[in-house]
Amino acid sequence: MVMQIEQQTRHAQQRPQHTPGKQVLTYTFDDLPLQGGARLASVTLAYESWGTLNAEGDNVILITHALTGNAHAHDAERPDDPKAAWWNPLIGPGRPIDTSRYFVISSNVLGGCSGSTGPSALDPASGRPYAMSFPIITIRDMVKAQHVLLQHLGVRKLALVVGGSIGGQQALEWAVTYPEMVDRVAVIAATAALTAQAIAFSEVERQAIMNDALWQGGNYAPGQGPGAGLAIARMLAVITYQSEEAMELRFARKPALDNVVFPPSHFPTLGERFDVEGYLYHQGQALARRFDANSYLYLSRAMDLYDVSSGYSSLEAALRRLRSKALFVGIRSDFLFPAAHVRWLADKVRATGGDATYVEIDSPHGHDAFLKEWEQMTAALSLL
Amino acid sequence: MVMQIEQQTRHAQQRPQHTPGKQVLTYTFDDLPLQGGARLASVTLAYESWGTLNAEGDNVILITHALTGNAHAHDAERPDDPKAAWWNPLIGPGRPIDTSRYFVISSNVLGGCSGSTGPSALDPASGRPYAMSFPIITIRDMVKAQHVLLQHLGVRKLALVVGGSIGGQQALEWAVTYPEMVDRVAVIAATAALTAQAIAFSEVERQAIMNDALWQGGNYAPGQGPGAGLAIARMLAVITYQSEEAMELRFARKPALDNVVFPPSHFPTLGERFDVEGYLYHQGQALARRFDANSYLYLSRAMDLYDVSSGYSSLEAALRRLRSKALFVGIRSDFLFPAAHVRWLADKVRATGGDATYVEIDSPHGHDAFLKEWEQMTAALSLL
Repeated sequence: MVMQIEQQTRHAQQRPQHTPGKQVLTYTFDDLPLQGGARLASVTLAYESWGTLNAEGDNVILITHALTGNAHAHDAERPDDPKAAWWNPLIGPGRPIDTSRYFVISSNVLGGCSGSTGPSALDPASGRPYAMSFPIITIRDMVKAQHVLLQHLGVRKLALVVGGSIGGQQALEWAVTYPEMVDRVAVIAATAALTAQAIAFSEVERQAIMNDALWQGGNYAPGQGPGAGLAIARMLAVITYQSEEAMELRFARKPALDNVVFPPSHFPTLGERFDVEGYLYHQGQALARRFDANSYLYLSRAMDLYDVSSGYSSLEAALRRLRSKALFVGIRSDFLFPAAHVRWLADKVRATGGDATYVEIDSPHGHDAFLKEWEQMTAALSLL
Repeated sequence: MVMQIEQQTRHAQQRPQHTPGKQVLTYTFDDLPLQGGARLASVTLAYESWGTLNAEGDNVILITHALTGNAHAHDAERPDDPKAAWWNPLIGPGRPIDTSRYFVISSNVLGGCSGSTGPSALDPASGRPYAMSFPIITIRDMVKAQHVLLQHLGVRKLALVVGGSIGGQQALEWAVTYPEMVDRVAVIAATAALTAQAIAFSEVERQAIMNDALWQGGNYAPGQGPGAGLAIARMLAVITYQSEEAMELRFARKPALDNVVFPPSHFPTLGERFDVEGYLYHQGQALARRFDANSYLYLSRAMDLYDVSSGYSSLEAALRRLRSKALFVGIRSDFLFPAAHVRWLADKVRATGGDATYVEIDSPHGHDAFLKEWEQMTAALSLL
């Protein structure tokens, strides 16, 4: 098993992500044919891993991250700090994703900006960043790129593929595209395809980015992108990741305690500022500092375009391919991926002869609950 | 009763609204003190009326319009065309708002851009449009301006004040501010105060406007404003006026039939365009053509800031002022003004000794149902 460690020199945009540390590796391979017909001449995937691969290459758990996530799902040096890595409480020795038994891999998604090839990477053909000449990528393309990485690492079987949101779409796509390779799959807060409302929110977010004067058709210099537009997109996304109930519990109509964070437009608030506004400004600004706007466009569009039945004669035909023991996790208050749609998908899998369990997380925290409700997430994953 | 008919020369921005026709009148008066402490030296309200005022001045129905609405609630020349005016099916001889018995008035709101004084009006002090020097206005200010108009027209009593959304906030505020003047009030799809989530959506909309390069701190020339930013704001607002259910029924994941409407950014859609996206572009563009961006900022902020208890020792103290027979109408699928919150308000009014009825419209159409569900709206209003 050879791991290829490279400097990320292919990437024009070097923004601070998490603290990558020495564990972040990259693997580069040539020629990835894409679902849309285009090809990427060279693809780099950044990844982290924990635990040890066995000789059979079958003790493997693949973790697929959410929209603006990265490979840093776990922090082995700070395993008890929930903020040190995005799924830290679920990963480690004796935890649901048990690094003492499994070789656990998490890779930054194709199209991303945290070490993997995306719109901010240099196009080998031109020597300049792809920007909007980057081809449309799909969930299937992301999964195929991960498959190349896993083959390179010597992985033969996946004991589990697990992810939430766009990561849940990837988990589902893994089970459909490579059924013989996936023993178990956990599809969390994800559905067979986005609703019209979710596509609509997503498109408003993209327009907010593309209408920022600094976007310039995607041809901005590193660090000089449409920060305000991306912050506005994030503000909206954050609303859709929560719920009316959760925002009422936390913010209601409380005034902001301070006005130290500026709104994206930098124009003063009209009248008093509400606490929820200051919170959204902060969330928007934080993403704008760490994320590439063009990546946001491509990744959110991949979510919209995803339909598990694409390329098959029907939804049933797609789902009938599954050979995995499947767990579907819905969240009561999720309005981006409504729990009823997750349950519907689990029912469909069972109706096509599959082995599917549905469990619902009872949380007010909306879509974000899969990044917050550690006890319920632990209980849910124990069902697999 | 003297009606003062003026040309709308005070208004720098003359965008086509509905077809105003000969019925649109204006009344101008001096010196409106505002809730926030500022004063407007001169205020013009545009209004339409139908029916005849009786000698006692008490057969009056006041209609208060929604955020981007105008005075044209009814079209007496095309009474059977639901699209000729925004509440046409509810207004006319023999209809719930009966123009054969009542003198019915609808005025464009203070802060608006359809003939009434708002940010696009000329500031008498400078001779230039107010733009962002327009003072913060509140729902109470809107109601006080309407009160001046009604006094001018010889109105002594209101048989009914009725409105939905921000118009419902105004109806409620009428009953609290002028309890002796309001016999009956219908508060439709409106609550005591907005939720954190609704404020959050509202602020994303405003940031989308203010981050448009053409906004220029509000100092754009007439017709050269932030059309794209306003369109993006409207796209988001339209999502919040509907529901997941309604959008699924109408759009689901259907592809767009044509691509003739450009998105606000004018950048091509990434991959296929969904029908829901084309619809939102169209809605955004339509508002950008007819509405003033600064008005949008001030009016949406007035919605956020509204809290019926403002200036009173408690919510109960405010509601205890009511002397009207009150009808509260919630909409099952409304997520901007959740039905449960409308019901809660009706319960509060009853608990303070008021006469309140709650009725719920069973519709998938979300907040917009009060502009669509004519039969249920007619039935609801018959309860008063």
